[in-house]
Amino acid sequence: MARPTPLSGFPEWLPQQRVVEQQILDSFRRTFELHGFAGIQTRSVEPLTELLRKGDTSKEVYVLGRLQGEGEPTESARLGLHFDLTVPLARYVLENAGKLDFPFKRYQIQPAWRGERPQEGRFREFWQADLDVVGDGDLPYHYEVELPLVAAEALGELRRFGVPPVRVLVNNRKVAEGFYRGIGLEAVDEVLRIIDKLGKVGPQVVAQMLAEEAGASPAQAAACLELAAISGSDDGVIDAVRALAQTHGASSDLLDVGLAELGALVTAAARRAPGVVVADLAIARGLDYYTGSVYETVLVGHEDLGSICSGGRYDTLASDGAHTYPGVGLSIGVSRLVSRLISADLVRATRKVPTAVLVAVANEEARATSDAVAAALRLRGIPADVAPTAAKFGKQIRHADRRGIPFVWFPGDDGAPDQVKDIRSGDQVDAEAASWEPPPEDVLPRVEAT
Amino acid sequence: MARPTPLSGFPEWLPQQRVVEQQILDSFRRTFELHGFAGIQTRSVEPLTELLRKGDTSKEVYVLGRLQGEGEPTESARLGLHFDLTVPLARYVLENAGKLDFPFKRYQIQPAWRGERPQEGRFREFWQADLDVVGDGDLPYHYEVELPLVAAEALGELRRFGVPPVRVLVNNRKVAEGFYRGIGLEAVDEVLRIIDKLGKVGPQVVAQMLAEEAGASPAQAAACLELAAISGSDDGVIDAVRALAQTHGASSDLLDVGLAELGALVTAAARRAPGVVVADLAIARGLDYYTGSVYETVLVGHEDLGSICSGGRYDTLASDGAHTYPGVGLSIGVSRLVSRLISADLVRATRKVPTAVLVAVANEEARATSDAVAAALRLRGIPADVAPTAAKFGKQIRHADRRGIPFVWFPGDDGAPDQVKDIRSGDQVDAEAASWEPPPEDVLPRVEAT
Repeated sequence: MARPTPLSGFPEWLPQQRVVEQQILDSFRRTFELHGFAGIQTRSVEPLTELLRKGDTSKEVYVLGRLQGEGEPTESARLGLHFDLTVPLARYVLENAGKLDFPFKRYQIQPAWRGERPQEGRFREFWQADLDVVGDGDLPYHYEVELPLVAAEALGELRRFGVPPVRVLVNNRKVAEGFYRGIGLEAVDEVLRIIDKLGKVGPQVVAQMLAEEAGASPAQAAACLELAAISGSDDGVIDAVRALAQTHGASSDLLDVGLAELGALVTAAARRAPGVVVADLAIARGLDYYTGSVYETVLVGHEDLGSICSGGRYDTLASDGAHTYPGVGLSIGVSRLVSRLISADLVRATRKVPTAVLVAVANEEARATSDAVAAALRLRGIPADVAPTAAKFGKQIRHADRRGIPFVWFPGDDGAPDQVKDIRSGDQVDAEAASWEPPPEDVLPRVEAT
Repeated sequence: MARPTPLSGFPEWLPQQRVVEQQILDSFRRTFELHGFAGIQTRSVEPLTELLRKGDTSKEVYVLGRLQGEGEPTESARLGLHFDLTVPLARYVLENAGKLDFPFKRYQIQPAWRGERPQEGRFREFWQADLDVVGDGDLPYHYEVELPLVAAEALGELRRFGVPPVRVLVNNRKVAEGFYRGIGLEAVDEVLRIIDKLGKVGPQVVAQMLAEEAGASPAQAAACLELAAISGSDDGVIDAVRALAQTHGASSDLLDVGLAELGALVTAAARRAPGVVVADLAIARGLDYYTGSVYETVLVGHEDLGSICSGGRYDTLASDGAHTYPGVGLSIGVSRLVSRLISADLVRATRKVPTAVLVAVANEEARATSDAVAAALRLRGIPADVAPTAAKFGKQIRHADRRGIPFVWFPGDDGAPDQVKDIRSGDQVDAEAASWEPPPEDVLPRVEAT
């Protein structure tokens, strides 16, 4: 068999890179659980009818087929791989509604699949870490404040690994919709879709698109762009929107509700995560069906990567007729984040293996002695491995060195004490397997800024 | 949307059940890492040509298609979901051989997919926890001893959750092949395939199949059944095989090598995991291409479930012409194990959420006070949540009770001290968020025997 080559859009990591991803996922999970989110997993597949409900994603869905065509499933029974973790959550909530407790706070860390053209930060198979709160019938606004703060905390925790800081950009659909309607623009969805492109195509093109595709007059287009230019991390941003609305005679109850909500979010964020959360009136979230707060997140210094954590409030996550389940959630693009950390060499794991100590083997007859040393170390939580062969000690030390294992243990023979060598410093000392401890920072691989 | 129903063969867990699975996976990972295995993940898909290499699994592979047929991939570019974690490992090793260190010890915890008919313990989407050591060119025999011992340790660690003990059954292909050839049966693969059915169909049917499908005489079939009846957890089993071989004049070098290997495994296991590892000469592992040790594992008292951890030694896991990579590994059937633990109600998590403390909210104006208490608890690693609404305290306590949250915190008003209530005992005491600790066993949900 010839050497296989990677498949574009299906990233994989070498063991040392996987340490980075794993420690990031562990850190996310810890933050989510500290905040009381329960971890769930859903199956990888959903009925195609479910996946195509939103209509505009059909091209991206991978459909499952069987090699032997016998008994091909009917259209309604066809299965596809999920393209996000929100559609499965909605289905899981409906399916298990009677067994779940609401508000239902859940996190979910799993891959999703989209058959689109791979680009930097955009994959065909990618991991997401999702965080949602789902209510039965209603869902208090304060969760729209809590969710981006939890995500900011989860991402902020990564700074100890050397990951750059993040900026969480927040907006509120009610503000946008209230303002657009207030200035006489009724094609709200269209305007949002166009404003969402502002970062990519710039204000001139957006103004043109607003005129051509949303029927905006030059004055209306200018007002939309003025609104989108407002940003800030304190109450001042609310005053600025209010002043702009007044100038354009665009006051409305919806705008007032939206501004009160956005103001509460900015105020809480300034207290609980100062400097991290920024109100940015340009955040539109394109075609997604949000109804209140919307969120995007950039990795500071890596804004070109796009949002690494997005979401918002949706009044109808799911509905079975009798009950409606509103939700608010965010989705962290794990693969997008990790692939940038690795490709830009921003952070690195201190070794390729969990092993802290390699126990040397003097000769194959004495392997059981080395096995016993390793077992004694493991009993106290110290990852230990035994040399694969009784090669010369120099070769065994190189075995450890290549993997980044910091310590090599030499069982003493003929009653001599065991010794352990720190192969970084060369220091070698007497030691007993039942009591020796490595420095705490050497017990497991660490992830550090390069 | 009507309430969705589960998809047969695609199991999902409720939050409290997921705690069981998650803690089992955490425990496996800890054991594997203590033994120096590096965690990797591979993509979910492989080229179809790779997946069909072994020939006889084609019916089980899920092939990926795209909804819009434009530019259907050529046959060689078609992708399928992997049906195990061994085929991906072989491909990963070849693809990254220059960047890996051999012997390469890796674990991998991921789902796999097979489009076969679902049955109890057999799913279309199922999680596996795989453990392998791969050599470059050669791989010392001692890894065939180490691997089942690590798996036995990993499974044995689950006993603290109330999971029943396991019995690891081991055999050696060289013993079987040496014996069969020694008594004049050359259709070794055929004999192994038939012997593998012994547990299901019984000795009479096996004898008939050996005659009809492997050309065995009544004496040869009887000898095969005599061999398969031998089992034991010490050296005696080796003596028994040797005696049987002598009776039938079936000595051979291959048999001697096999018996020496099996003897070494049994001896080491008797020392390192007494009573857990049993040599069982009936273990054949059907059509799998093992060349040395083979392993199966039963959950004691749940033998009907079949093997929950199987594997063996394969001299050619992968080869690129210039290099051959032998391996030895085991695969734990996580979904099979967990589904039995749950369906038979053998173990249970103590609560549905990570939350140890629910902080009550006296009125919405005081929510920030409750948020601050929760933040202070989380800072010290105590999972805390804040009540969703400022309902009557009785309702807030029921919110905690339904989820199994053991403590409810009441912020004091007007300078009165905060209080915390253990809602199981009803005890309520003064407490400070900066210093109060729950009993260590209440910090996180526990998994216990029911």
